[in-house]
Amino acid sequence: MGTTDPTHRTVWREATTVKMIDQTKLPHTLDIMSLPRYQDTARAIKEMNVRGAPAIGATAAYALAQAVAEAPPQDFLTFVTNARAHIEQTRPTAVDLFHATARVFDALPEDDHEAAKAAAFNEAEKIAQESVDMCKAIGTYGATLIQDKARIATHCNAGSLATVSLGTALSPIFHAHREGKEIFVYVDETRPRAQGARLTAWELLTAGVPHTIISDNVTGFLMQRGKIDLMIVGADRIVAADGSVANKIGTYEKAVCAKENGVPFYVAAPTSTVDFSLNSGSDIPIEERSQDEVLYIRGKNDQGELARVRIAPEGSTALNLAFDVTPAKYVTGIITEKGIVPPTELHRLK
Amino acid sequence: MGTTDPTHRTVWREATTVKMIDQTKLPHTLDIMSLPRYQDTARAIKEMNVRGAPAIGATAAYALAQAVAEAPPQDFLTFVTNARAHIEQTRPTAVDLFHATARVFDALPEDDHEAAKAAAFNEAEKIAQESVDMCKAIGTYGATLIQDKARIATHCNAGSLATVSLGTALSPIFHAHREGKEIFVYVDETRPRAQGARLTAWELLTAGVPHTIISDNVTGFLMQRGKIDLMIVGADRIVAADGSVANKIGTYEKAVCAKENGVPFYVAAPTSTVDFSLNSGSDIPIEERSQDEVLYIRGKNDQGELARVRIAPEGSTALNLAFDVTPAKYVTGIITEKGIVPPTELHRLK
Repeated sequence: MGTTDPTHRTVWREATTVKMIDQTKLPHTLDIMSLPRYQDTARAIKEMNVRGAPAIGATAAYALAQAVAEAPPQDFLTFVTNARAHIEQTRPTAVDLFHATARVFDALPEDDHEAAKAAAFNEAEKIAQESVDMCKAIGTYGATLIQDKARIATHCNAGSLATVSLGTALSPIFHAHREGKEIFVYVDETRPRAQGARLTAWELLTAGVPHTIISDNVTGFLMQRGKIDLMIVGADRIVAADGSVANKIGTYEKAVCAKENGVPFYVAAPTSTVDFSLNSGSDIPIEERSQDEVLYIRGKNDQGELARVRIAPEGSTALNLAFDVTPAKYVTGIITEKGIVPPTELHRLK
Repeated sequence: MGTTDPTHRTVWREATTVKMIDQTKLPHTLDIMSLPRYQDTARAIKEMNVRGAPAIGATAAYALAQAVAEAPPQDFLTFVTNARAHIEQTRPTAVDLFHATARVFDALPEDDHEAAKAAAFNEAEKIAQESVDMCKAIGTYGATLIQDKARIATHCNAGSLATVSLGTALSPIFHAHREGKEIFVYVDETRPRAQGARLTAWELLTAGVPHTIISDNVTGFLMQRGKIDLMIVGADRIVAADGSVANKIGTYEKAVCAKENGVPFYVAAPTSTVDFSLNSGSDIPIEERSQDEVLYIRGKNDQGELARVRIAPEGSTALNLAFDVTPAKYVTGIITEKGIVPPTELHRLK
């Protein structure tokens, strides 16, 4: 398991055990979790040991396959149905999760427990491999947008760690870097969970891509001063009907500032992220997470241990919205595994 | 020294010693610093034990008065001139600092050391008291903009702690609250130094004003969803020539999002913050601070001690721009002690 190479995996399985990099401990400690049962895997999704829409999708597929393997024959369908509901409740904004569990569920043959187990794991593996292939194609298409000497901004982590491998928003960046283009990446810290400062910076450092971390307040000003040539972010859900993009909180602010300053703003995401059912971005449920993620922050203390510190006074509360919705008018294009399209033409990909 | 009351002071003097609340330890510990010599006071400005343009101005005035008291008679002018340069280098973006040191310097009588000392401290006290009076007037004018049930966003800390007392952006909020208006305040965390989560939240909590903390990524989305009625921020410098506002990094992004969503965006600042010399906001020097402020964050650990944790991987760097510049077109009005004016009509206040 060479995690220094973005072509390697962040989640995989060994027999019926799911293995994954514990992303809550990065970048300070590289720890591999072993999750023997579906509820362990579901908890890892909920606790964000794994995060990023495509990685969540593959992990949810593995989790449901584990549930199929655990289901008692006399109570098979009830057990699997309940497990599916349990898994789907872990991260309600991530549409990949629902696609993945539906695919595994639909792949189950009737009335044959052993065949169901094999079919479920087979479908989960297929989902994971498809994700890798899609990220590779996104990298190839996306790299055509990156000129030599380009200064690129990104928000949150849509890298190898957010997918099964390679990443979405970072895949074009890795591709351009491998092609020998001289690029520079501005990494938004991405409060409250600091996935940019923790995970994106770690991936870029590991891959040798020149970069610097900025607090989330800086990006718009760098755009105003002409320091950013383009911005690429990932997506948790894209609504085909109106082209709006749900992604990590802060994406909307960056996209508005990009448009205001004429900076191209791209969203990189596999077509599995596209939601053809909703009528509008305003119908996307916005996950509200624990206020402790805002009131505290985790990191490595001066003794080298993982610890948290409280920033806010005792008694103050926080509102922790995990995602926002960026309307299509702020998005230059969606980089998918099938090509780059304007956000209002996603129906062409159906 | 009742710090629970925003009418009390955050910086003052006792004989030739400057006293101040150590804002780097808030909200966890309330610690009063004693600064016997001008270099101690200058260091406190540089290290941001005191911050906020008006508070910096008063502190710089006290520091220069200390230098006048310390100056050897045989080398008086050289000593004071060097001290002034030393003090002015601590925070180059804060125009109040330059106004304050110039006022103290210009108040010095020639060739009389004792008279100079008295005149310097007298002028410093005058600057501090004027700041209190200006904040009070800003509160009275600004509160007329706040309706009952208003939901107000603010960025950074432009409260009592940022001034000698009462605050600029928070003064209208305190005033409206005292008038009995039911208001609610969204407090931007304000990375990297988290002055919102640490200081603004502490002041609002202390004054009993309902509020919640949000990460800096949330504000624009709340505006998009119609959750914010107006935003009020402070300013470090306002350029009269074009009405652009230098303030804490992130102000620009918020102002762009406010305009995009039709949310009134006000800047509260005394007229001492107005710079009549520059031709354009792009001429304002932008302070770049230590990257450690981004790579680490300070707070209270689970043992109750003040500590820092490192967020980013070892080896990654950060770019830490402390301020940004918001062009006049994003600013609805400037709330000054002389009234509320559009940012392009500041010359009327000269």
